[in-house]
Amino acid sequence: MKLGEIASRLGHEVIGKEDIEITGVATIESAGEAQLTFLSNIKYKKYLAVTKAAAVITDKAKNLLEGQSGIISDNPYLTFARALTLFHKPEEPFKEIHSTAVVDPSVEMGSGVVIGPYSVIAGGVKIGSGVTIHSHCQIYPDVEIGDGSLIYSHCAIREGSRIGAGVILQNNVTIGGDGFGYARKSDGSWYKIPQTGVVIIEDEVEIGAGSTIDRATIGSTVIGRGTKIDNLVHIGHGSIVGQNTLLCAQVGLAGSTQVGNEVILGGQVGAAGHLKIGDRVMATAQSGIPASVEAGKIISGSPAIDHRAWLKYCAVYAQTAEVFKEVRVLREQLNELLNEKHQPRNDRQIS
Amino acid sequence: MKLGEIASRLGHEVIGKEDIEITGVATIESAGEAQLTFLSNIKYKKYLAVTKAAAVITDKAKNLLEGQSGIISDNPYLTFARALTLFHKPEEPFKEIHSTAVVDPSVEMGSGVVIGPYSVIAGGVKIGSGVTIHSHCQIYPDVEIGDGSLIYSHCAIREGSRIGAGVILQNNVTIGGDGFGYARKSDGSWYKIPQTGVVIIEDEVEIGAGSTIDRATIGSTVIGRGTKIDNLVHIGHGSIVGQNTLLCAQVGLAGSTQVGNEVILGGQVGAAGHLKIGDRVMATAQSGIPASVEAGKIISGSPAIDHRAWLKYCAVYAQTAEVFKEVRVLREQLNELLNEKHQPRNDRQIS
Amino acid sequence: MKLGEIASRLGHEVIGKEDIEITGVATIESAGEAQLTFLSNIKYKKYLAVTKAAAVITDKAKNLLEGQSGIISDNPYLTFARALTLFHKPEEPFKEIHSTAVVDPSVEMGSGVVIGPYSVIAGGVKIGSGVTIHSHCQIYPDVEIGDGSLIYSHCAIREGSRIGAGVILQNNVTIGGDGFGYARKSDGSWYKIPQTGVVIIEDEVEIGAGSTIDRATIGSTVIGRGTKIDNLVHIGHGSIVGQNTLLCAQVGLAGSTQVGNEVILGGQVGAAGHLKIGDRVMATAQSGIPASVEAGKIISGSPAIDHRAWLKYCAVYAQTAEVFKEVRVLREQLNELLNEKHQPRNDRQIS
Repeated sequence: MKLGEIASRLGHEVIGKEDIEITGVATIESAGEAQLTFLSNIKYKKYLAVTKAAAVITDKAKNLLEGQSGIISDNPYLTFARALTLFHKPEEPFKEIHSTAVVDPSVEMGSGVVIGPYSVIAGGVKIGSGVTIHSHCQIYPDVEIGDGSLIYSHCAIREGSRIGAGVILQNNVTIGGDGFGYARKSDGSWYKIPQTGVVIIEDEVEIGAGSTIDRATIGSTVIGRGTKIDNLVHIGHGSIVGQNTLLCAQVGLAGSTQVGNEVILGGQVGAAGHLKIGDRVMATAQSGIPASVEAGKIISGSPAIDHRAWLKYCAVYAQTAEVFKEVRVLREQLNELLNEKHQPRNDRQIS
Repeated sequence: MKLGEIASRLGHEVIGKEDIEITGVATIESAGEAQLTFLSNIKYKKYLAVTKAAAVITDKAKNLLEGQSGIISDNPYLTFARALTLFHKPEEPFKEIHSTAVVDPSVEMGSGVVIGPYSVIAGGVKIGSGVTIHSHCQIYPDVEIGDGSLIYSHCAIREGSRIGAGVILQNNVTIGGDGFGYARKSDGSWYKIPQTGVVIIEDEVEIGAGSTIDRATIGSTVIGRGTKIDNLVHIGHGSIVGQNTLLCAQVGLAGSTQVGNEVILGGQVGAAGHLKIGDRVMATAQSGIPASVEAGKIISGSPAIDHRAWLKYCAVYAQTAEVFKEVRVLREQLNELLNEKHQPRNDRQIS
Repeated sequence: MKLGEIASRLGHEVIGKEDIEITGVATIESAGEAQLTFLSNIKYKKYLAVTKAAAVITDKAKNLLEGQSGIISDNPYLTFARALTLFHKPEEPFKEIHSTAVVDPSVEMGSGVVIGPYSVIAGGVKIGSGVTIHSHCQIYPDVEIGDGSLIYSHCAIREGSRIGAGVILQNNVTIGGDGFGYARKSDGSWYKIPQTGVVIIEDEVEIGAGSTIDRATIGSTVIGRGTKIDNLVHIGHGSIVGQNTLLCAQVGLAGSTQVGNEVILGGQVGAAGHLKIGDRVMATAQSGIPASVEAGKIISGSPAIDHRAWLKYCAVYAQTAEVFKEVRVLREQLNELLNEKHQPRNDRQIS
């Protein structure tokens, strides 16, 4: 594809040679001679002089070296992602409803639905147009799946779950498993509380491989529109996650956790239940969130505190044992001084 | 169902109108006009005045407002759970042994067994009466499954595992995968130690979606009667977990970990191997347990310490950098005082 | 099997009676009278006097008691593992290509391939000789699997992944799921970056149940030869893991993490992206690795610091609140001393 055509498809201006043939997209360090690359982080600017790339997506024409071609975009990283999409046409592994798919007669389906081998669609399920369900999926009764959603192999979507349009579930995802709820009996054993609620996954959500989103005890567990969830994430029953939020790998939300819009929780973050994490909160990796967090805060640590306070803590915590020892020495020395002060001069001469 | 009938089925006394028609159960904040709710935590007492619920399960008649109907129970939360069960009759998605199930001729089965589409039951397996196995499960050779157990889709139960009666496995659970055991060879590579043991899951255990319970190298990995395990939990090979214990989501037990009865490990807790966690220990979320813990202790932190000591730590740790700086200032000021004291007065006049 | 034959097969010398009949292998505490055991950790030496074992694998003949038989090996633990292998002949649950396996006509296969029921092998896949694929696996298009690899049930291997020879995937593993990559749009929503790369799993790698290895955005995610990965581990897109490395359960590597050879990351360790962990680094359980780590370092804590410094921290951190209080008292007392010093003696008499 010519550089000019790429720019035109992406709606951006070309600097330099429009007719260079571009065969793909790569990072600035690895790009070959017929590839397009991008500069979005200024610390990579040094690579501009050495990259072999045929052209560079950047936000300012003046970043480009003499004679270097480029595409100008306010958001070079987004434009790179969109350019990558132009060159990435994955072959679909499944193309129709496979003869081995077990589809209940009561299932309602739009046009262009693809269902892979050995998937099972139970009674009362509604599947929108253009939905693709890969192999070995189990769609339990009364699930709804919106238009254009893509469900990879081995997903289990439990009874009554509602999946929006344009949703992507990577492999091995479980939606709507029973929440972890028990009432203690007098003999110390646990009575299972029926998990009568559902899970609602809104439009444009993506969920990573192996993640589990539990159904609510009563009501709904909700993942808001446009939210992206990484692999092996656990969402406890009754949690409500807002829109355009990112939950990185191995995050865990206990029950009834409320997470706002445009929140980012780093890898392995845990949040206790029955709390509210405000809009645009960021929690760095491994944070433990024990209580509600105000909108816009950046937090870190376990238990999580203000990110800047935590950075200061991190810079010195390795010295803890030495400092504590110093405090003991200070105490001894100060005690000596205080003792001297409180003892009459004569006493000291006697002793 | 009339309020009186509900109370009678649950074995409790009604206060107020026995003939109110109840259509469901809900939380005190969300209950509608024909719903039953409960008050078990005193901090929700304020909602009694505003709830729309037709009746309230509570432990003392005097909690109810003038004219409010209720059910009196020593354990309102348990009674709520049992009431919820009365109203929750989930439709079973599978009703018989599906024609696509692959069942080895040597399999022994009790009465009323249900096996979903595309499940595979290998040779030598014994399945008790009333067992339900959903779709896409693989039951490996010589597994035993006790009466009335319920196994959701996509579970893998490896060779020789013994599953008790009344056990529930949520979707995507792996029982009896090989333990993580290797012996180092002289060239730095790892020799796989055969994992020759089994997994024993006792009666009434429930295991959450995506969890993995590894088989022992030699002997057994055991999950004790009535223990409940949440999603994405890892139990290492040779671990022995007691009875009525709760392991919350994303907990990890290394190999040969012993966990007592009625223990509660919060979300993302990790325990090192070859240690013993006593009965009724509680570890709050994200605790790291490096060594054995006495029965009855409440612990927190990584590494875990006494919970109250940890709370004190949490209250102040954000001040660490400031306090350490203060210690340095104290040191300097004290040094000045000490220097003065040790210098003769005349010297100071000269300088 | 006679003790002499075991020793001969393992290439080691026998001390004592070569003709004892051995029926199995067990730990020194649990071994019965016809079993072989081992002594590799000197702290178990006390059990030599009480073990019922017929013979003991040990590194020095002099460890054995008077009349005790044994096998002498430089590496008793490895020899124990190899002896265990002699006695462990697991029955293979699947023996051929099952009639229900869906194998695309374009698939190329070596000899002796086994494919379990309901597995699906897509177009363009190449499977080496002696490969065993259990039930319910989905091998996506253009995957290559090397000779002798063993893939347990419910694995999903996504398009273009390359699996080496002698690889073992435990149940429910996902190889090549999309990496977690999005570009932010001006309205706050996220644009999905196509994950155009692949995953390369080199020879002799083992991956535990439920683990997920994401495909790279561009290029490859690589797991090096001989590396062993435990259950529920997440490997982010573009990460490169070296050879003979151990990643314990629930480890998470963010994107583009480089891990060296013979590294050991303990359970629940997390590593940030775009960093390099040198060869032979060890990180203890729950460590959080925020930045690159030099080869050979032992680290602990979150954020991770030198292991010895961390042990010192652990020994005292429970005293933090008390020490901080002491610092405040020191400050007050020192202030009093300083005030006195700076006040003329006469002033004090007046006041």
